Amino acid sequence: MSETNVDSLVASHDPTHPANLICQLCRLFYNNGWVTGTGGGISIRDGDLIYIAPSGVQKERMVADNMFVMDLPTKKYLRVPESLKPSACTPLFLAAYTIRNAGACIHTHSQNAVVVSLLYDKVFTIANIEQIKALPKIVEPGYLGFFDTLIIPIIENTAHEEDLKDSLEQAIIDYPSATAVLVRRHGIYVWGETVWKAKVYNEAIDYLLELAVKMRQLGIPPDGGIGSERNTRLV
Amino acid sequence: MSETNVDSLVASHDPTHPANLICQLCRLFYNNGWVTGTGGGISIRDGDLIYIAPSGVQKERMVADNMFVMDLPTKKYLRVPESLKPSACTPLFLAAYTIRNAGACIHTHSQNAVVVSLLYDKVFTIANIEQIKALPKIVEPGYLGFFDTLIIPIIENTAHEEDLKDSLEQAIIDYPSATAVLVRRHGIYVWGETVWKAKVYNEAIDYLLELAVKMRQLGIPPDGGIGSERNTRLV
Amino acid sequence: MSETNVDSLVASHDPTHPANLICQLCRLFYNNGWVTGTGGGISIRDGDLIYIAPSGVQKERMVADNMFVMDLPTKKYLRVPESLKPSACTPLFLAAYTIRNAGACIHTHSQNAVVVSLLYDKVFTIANIEQIKALPKIVEPGYLGFFDTLIIPIIENTAHEEDLKDSLEQAIIDYPSATAVLVRRHGIYVWGETVWKAKVYNEAIDYLLELAVKMRQLGIPPDGGIGSERNTRLV
Amino acid sequence: MSETNVDSLVASHDPTHPANLICQLCRLFYNNGWVTGTGGGISIRDGDLIYIAPSGVQKERMVADNMFVMDLPTKKYLRVPESLKPSACTPLFLAAYTIRNAGACIHTHSQNAVVVSLLYDKVFTIANIEQIKALPKIVEPGYLGFFDTLIIPIIENTAHEEDLKDSLEQAIIDYPSATAVLVRRHGIYVWGETVWKAKVYNEAIDYLLELAVKMRQLGIPPDGGIGSERNTRLV
Repeated sequence: MSETNVDSLVASHDPTHPANLICQLCRLFYNNGWVTGTGGGISIRDGDLIYIAPSGVQKERMVADNMFVMDLPTKKYLRVPESLKPSACTPLFLAAYTIRNAGACIHTHSQNAVVVSLLYDKVFTIANIEQIKALPKIVEPGYLGFFDTLIIPIIENTAHEEDLKDSLEQAIIDYPSATAVLVRRHGIYVWGETVWKAKVYNEAIDYLLELAVKMRQLGIPPDGGIGSERNTRLV
Repeated sequence: MSETNVDSLVASHDPTHPANLICQLCRLFYNNGWVTGTGGGISIRDGDLIYIAPSGVQKERMVADNMFVMDLPTKKYLRVPESLKPSACTPLFLAAYTIRNAGACIHTHSQNAVVVSLLYDKVFTIANIEQIKALPKIVEPGYLGFFDTLIIPIIENTAHEEDLKDSLEQAIIDYPSATAVLVRRHGIYVWGETVWKAKVYNEAIDYLLELAVKMRQLGIPPDGGIGSERNTRLV
Repeated sequence: MSETNVDSLVASHDPTHPANLICQLCRLFYNNGWVTGTGGGISIRDGDLIYIAPSGVQKERMVADNMFVMDLPTKKYLRVPESLKPSACTPLFLAAYTIRNAGACIHTHSQNAVVVSLLYDKVFTIANIEQIKALPKIVEPGYLGFFDTLIIPIIENTAHEEDLKDSLEQAIIDYPSATAVLVRRHGIYVWGETVWKAKVYNEAIDYLLELAVKMRQLGIPPDGGIGSERNTRLV
Repeated sequence: MSETNVDSLVASHDPTHPANLICQLCRLFYNNGWVTGTGGGISIRDGDLIYIAPSGVQKERMVADNMFVMDLPTKKYLRVPESLKPSACTPLFLAAYTIRNAGACIHTHSQNAVVVSLLYDKVFTIANIEQIKALPKIVEPGYLGFFDTLIIPIIENTAHEEDLKDSLEQAIIDYPSATAVLVRRHGIYVWGETVWKAKVYNEAIDYLLELAVKMRQLGIPPDGGIGSERNTRLV
């Protein structure tokens, strides 16, 4: 499994090589509290090659040598690191790659995502906040506008992460403009055309989830029209 | 566009060169959650030269070579980095430079700014808090005193950031003692005589915005007189 | 006490040597606010050797030379650093080592732990949250499932930390599936088979304590069944 | 003013030299949000020499060369850095040095301190929390116990920081067991026998202030007896 030509898939001095980038981003996500306690996961696609962080490891302490590599067309592992288990997120990452042609997919246990999943039923919606403009329309080129409503579907969690596959795929199909799916009492999956876009979408969405919780606590509907906040103003 | 003499505008080993300082400060602002997801922007003026961070990029990953440089008197770009777009904040930065002779202008998507913009109508006011003393009087030399009231105007957001220009300029004129303007459901613009003063004002204002939200949640009016908090005391 | 062969117990260039790892982890815990103000403690077992951070020192500024080393079978100190006092947590760490054969034990003053200890009586319980899956079943191999309930006993604090020994031991015996014990108005003890597992359990538990406080503030019972949150939904 | 023999007071490669330590600690305090926007201050005493950070500068960007040095017996400045102003905190630091023989004094604009100053009248009190044990009894050797009550006096703010001198001195005299004084709508002064003790006391107190605000928000009296929290328990 660990022949030289296979290890060369993850051995690179280039900090932007997917195997190195996964490690670097997971340290960042760890500091945000998104992947503490081995939670969460990440995958980057490079052409037909998919790089995937292993299961059940401390995300902030991974090294490039820990990465799984899969061939997307055949779904065969090209590289399996010794004594590590493949991520249970793999079928979910594949859904983003095959249905949406994503370049990367990020899964976090962000508390903002979990709390929002407890406050909303089938979908999370927020409108009329500038940060929404960081998110893509998907169904047509370009980005959402300030007056647009961001919609993120929420699916129910399952006992085993891989069993989320069907409902996640259905949500991706049912919400063609979504670039993320919330999983109730669990976290969020966010994908993008490239790893940097996935990271930016993830940051922008988490910002909006955090803001929505604050707005709810102040009695302001996050998807309310402009001026709807007036009812709660003291002055 | 990228001739050697033009690139020399941003190439310097001096960490206090505006092109380097913008990168350094944006990493700091990113860690504060002020410019996540490509949000926010910053510009520094050096004499007649204006350095501006580009649009839609990850603010914490910028390098000096990404900077736009404009000639203030002519409003002509002296340097346009390849494949990057000018910031939509540029007309707003120019308002601070031309109306107030600012040395730098910072724009963030701080959640404290957005939440305060939902809680207040035309202006944000806070009084009788020591941190207010970090902010300038502007209409006369010196700084606000402990017993003074800090007033920051709030303008309505627009679909396109550049369309904020007129109302931002009007707010700057209407509130001659303001060194910042809040944009509802969007964020804040803060400027100062130098980049360091702009940074300090931004920090002091964000501290006061955060404190004001906490005070409101505890039922204490942020601009209340000394002693007005007594009504909410348990002991 | 400080002969060369004794100091060699803590002198190593290997960053994963227990004496070095304790220092590294305490800097991380300090940044999390878990061991500020000399609070908290940590111990790692290496075979029959137990490494213990000293009492009353700044946890983020320790060096390997500050470590106490004890022989587990005889409970005799093999190394006592000059002018430092043994940790009052030592009898509690020993309880985890002897009753549970732990490989490491972490004690923090996490505010999430203290707040939860004020909100719950005899035990803290949380259920149906994905992060629970990071925690072990203990009474049988494997980890808790999404639908399982995590139970952490809460014991009363005592004037002197070492006097917690009896009630902590009793809690470990009474709750054979617990890998942590909360101490009311004080903090938490978390242990694991290895130092890395103890760290991961600690992170996962603190995440769940933080989430539980947020859920309580939103009126959602942390150990409620799936769907119990519907009562608090606005939409 | 800047003769070589005077500059030698602050020039040292020793990271524990007071002039270096002030810079290092202020970077730490800045990251905690305690001295943002040029707020706060710090002074360390070394025998009869007092090192004091200057007024109105960015605390996280200071260098040793920025430090003022005063002779404690004569209250004369031995070193005045060019183009910097002495801290308005100086008379308050001197109060801690002369009345309590302190080794260092820290002043922060911690939001926890400001919020607590709005919630309490003449004194802040908290009891029966383990972290209290990090604080000294002062009137006799040793530290507070778990069952003791920590008392911190609160004084009213004044227009000019130096005018706090009389009421701060009175509070130090009136509360002989206090190692800190809260200033309403302003922040906190904390001192200790050494700089490290002052830092530890400051961290422990800020932890307790933060916890007290959380307890108040949950309806639990921070100085309530053990068991007083039962009224607010749901389970």
